[in-house]
Amino acid sequence: MSELKQMDHSSLQNLYNKTKQEFESIKKQNLALNMARGKPSAEQLKLSLKLLDSVNSENIGDHLSVLNYGLVDGIPEAKALFKDMLGVDTEEILIGGNASLNIMHDLISKALIKGVVDSEAPWGKEDKIKFICPVPGYDRHFTICEQYDIEMISVDMLEDGPDMDKVEELVRNDASIKGMWSVPKYSNPDGVTYSDDVVERLAKMETKANDFKIFWDNAYVVHDLTDYSPRLKNILEACKKHGNPNRVFMFASTSKITFPGAGVAVVAASKENINFIKEQLSVQTIGPDKVNQLRHVRFFKNYDNILAHMKKHADIMKPKFDAVLNILHSKLDSYGVATWTEPEGGYFISLNTMDGCASEVIRLAKEAGVTLTGAGAAFPYGNDPRDRNIRIAPSFPTLEEVEQAIEVLCICIILVSTNKLL
Amino acid sequence: MSELKQMDHSSLQNLYNKTKQEFESIKKQNLALNMARGKPSAEQLKLSLKLLDSVNSENIGDHLSVLNYGLVDGIPEAKALFKDMLGVDTEEILIGGNASLNIMHDLISKALIKGVVDSEAPWGKEDKIKFICPVPGYDRHFTICEQYDIEMISVDMLEDGPDMDKVEELVRNDASIKGMWSVPKYSNPDGVTYSDDVVERLAKMETKANDFKIFWDNAYVVHDLTDYSPRLKNILEACKKHGNPNRVFMFASTSKITFPGAGVAVVAASKENINFIKEQLSVQTIGPDKVNQLRHVRFFKNYDNILAHMKKHADIMKPKFDAVLNILHSKLDSYGVATWTEPEGGYFISLNTMDGCASEVIRLAKEAGVTLTGAGAAFPYGNDPRDRNIRIAPSFPTLEEVEQAIEVLCICIILVSTNKLL
Repeated sequence: MSELKQMDHSSLQNLYNKTKQEFESIKKQNLALNMARGKPSAEQLKLSLKLLDSVNSENIGDHLSVLNYGLVDGIPEAKALFKDMLGVDTEEILIGGNASLNIMHDLISKALIKGVVDSEAPWGKEDKIKFICPVPGYDRHFTICEQYDIEMISVDMLEDGPDMDKVEELVRNDASIKGMWSVPKYSNPDGVTYSDDVVERLAKMETKANDFKIFWDNAYVVHDLTDYSPRLKNILEACKKHGNPNRVFMFASTSKITFPGAGVAVVAASKENINFIKEQLSVQTIGPDKVNQLRHVRFFKNYDNILAHMKKHADIMKPKFDAVLNILHSKLDSYGVATWTEPEGGYFISLNTMDGCASEVIRLAKEAGVTLTGAGAAFPYGNDPRDRNIRIAPSFPTLEEVEQAIEVLCICIILVSTNKLL
Repeated sequence: MSELKQMDHSSLQNLYNKTKQEFESIKKQNLALNMARGKPSAEQLKLSLKLLDSVNSENIGDHLSVLNYGLVDGIPEAKALFKDMLGVDTEEILIGGNASLNIMHDLISKALIKGVVDSEAPWGKEDKIKFICPVPGYDRHFTICEQYDIEMISVDMLEDGPDMDKVEELVRNDASIKGMWSVPKYSNPDGVTYSDDVVERLAKMETKANDFKIFWDNAYVVHDLTDYSPRLKNILEACKKHGNPNRVFMFASTSKITFPGAGVAVVAASKENINFIKEQLSVQTIGPDKVNQLRHVRFFKNYDNILAHMKKHADIMKPKFDAVLNILHSKLDSYGVATWTEPEGGYFISLNTMDGCASEVIRLAKEAGVTLTGAGAAFPYGNDPRDRNIRIAPSFPTLEEVEQAIEVLCICIILVSTNKLL
């Protein structure tokens, strides 16, 4: 085998024909495999089943008040448990319901109507507002911006975080840039962890908008695949040091620690930000589900147990990631038509085809019964300018299904690439 | 005893002096009683403790998927259970998280940014928007309007619902009136259930704004204190009949059926409205806590069991309401300085003092260790124009505490009334 680009026409044609046959025979298998979303598997859910038993009619004891109204910022025991995950003080954290995305969305919708700490006017009163979006990134972040007509400015994700030269230039000169999305550890989908230097520059940079906010979605904060865990610099501390304490909202959740549908979400920020959020929340609701917070507190007891629990997730996830990588290597290495990440954590492998091939690969895979994340999903407005990025989410299917799906993916990549070069 | 207004000066002075002595001696008791909020008691919470056991690691069975992402509109089993509570079809209901207030808030905040079904523009793009607020009403509704600069127009609550002549006139002539709050059964705090005629007129009335919405907060839909339950006409059906299917959002929750902090909230509306809400929700969150929905489904099984469960609440609540009413009657009847409701359900007794006395009564009660809902809380902007309304919430304290608190309240009312007449 040799790189496709160096193959002569008839070799390419032969490869195309052979691969096309494989593709047609796979179609006949009526596969139904889904690698579209970063969704934990049943096996992972079972790791936390005992959490459901940690508050019941027998053992609730003197915690009856968690069933009643109140404590809009969450129970103190939950703050004590989760503050170490984000490296903040108890006054700098607020414990919410089951979805950190919901908290992010609500912060933005309220900012549009009322502004944030340091705003001179509600964001929605400005002619136009913009967010910086490192790309590729998380589609649900971008959907919030799209929903609320917030213009998205793509900035490339480099090996140690977003292109900071570009970010600094943008925010220094444009007052309409009010925010920036970030998944700073094991970024979705590239698996990049921001370097100390990137964190430092984000905390320090001069912004034309006084009320510029970084939405620091630390979704994979404890989601290592191996014993190695890259250090992520504490951005809140860095922001304080540089005199910008209110610049960042940090988010995390137990969606991929316990249960995606019934976890606990947290937001951390400066005391001033947290008080502001708490005040707004008091208008919105009387309080979060505190019983579920208590379940988590009793199940984990302390932060070390959360870390130990995550090793069990890694034991399930790692073989799936390895399977994907092994098959990609063995099937594609020699052809030189795709590159991919080899992440040390998080939920995704990010693959780039030759320019102009991703959407056709995804379409063919679907035809063969393998659902991948939609083409362009990792880019603002669903538009991958080079049409090359494919996000692979190996968590939900079984190991065998992952292997099957990636075999199919490789066939589709070879098929589309040869066809393009013919 | 005779009516205070007919007493001569010295009799009034004697009554004042005697009551003042009683008041001073109560202050020495250092009471700490709270009747401020409609909060269920510990005894009521215990009625539902077994709900916590209805989903655990042993019995979850093949419902593992409720732990995962998805189903932004709730699980079908929960729709089937709660649709009868609001009298709608399964396509007309959406099951949310733990707080219906949160759903109401979010509908309004999104309407401000994006509009609702039938909107020509987002509400927030209009120069001014207004809501009709039947008064006295629920303070948390009014707080949402105040937070978002929605002007509130008070309309008096009559014996069978809001003053419909006034409501019809307002909405017919003012396009900036976009919404109206309603607690249609056992209204907060007056305990009024809207008559068929009022419901019919609300459904039928001509509104200048095409996108006028009624926020129908049926918080006390199954919260009868006796075996009698007043019929509330189905407003969604009435709206459909009159060609205004998208006019109403109906809300309910199990906050005062199971757990205030860990219940399940529902919204019901036309299919078109529900689809619109669902689409917006999909931007906001991946899904609600479906495990808690399943807990409720398994605990209640069917709607009849919810009704049977509510009788147990009534057994706890009724003696407290009776105690309040008995003491009010025995202490105040003859003086003619206060009137109060005798509700058949809900959470409140609404008391009116002589004009100009309520805030002083509430202040003195606080001084004597009895916390009541803040003066004016039941009115937009916290302003009770006649300063006479006091909301009594007997649910949370024990029966003995309720009796003590109402004795104190009566003393404060007599003290303030005599002082005013002197």
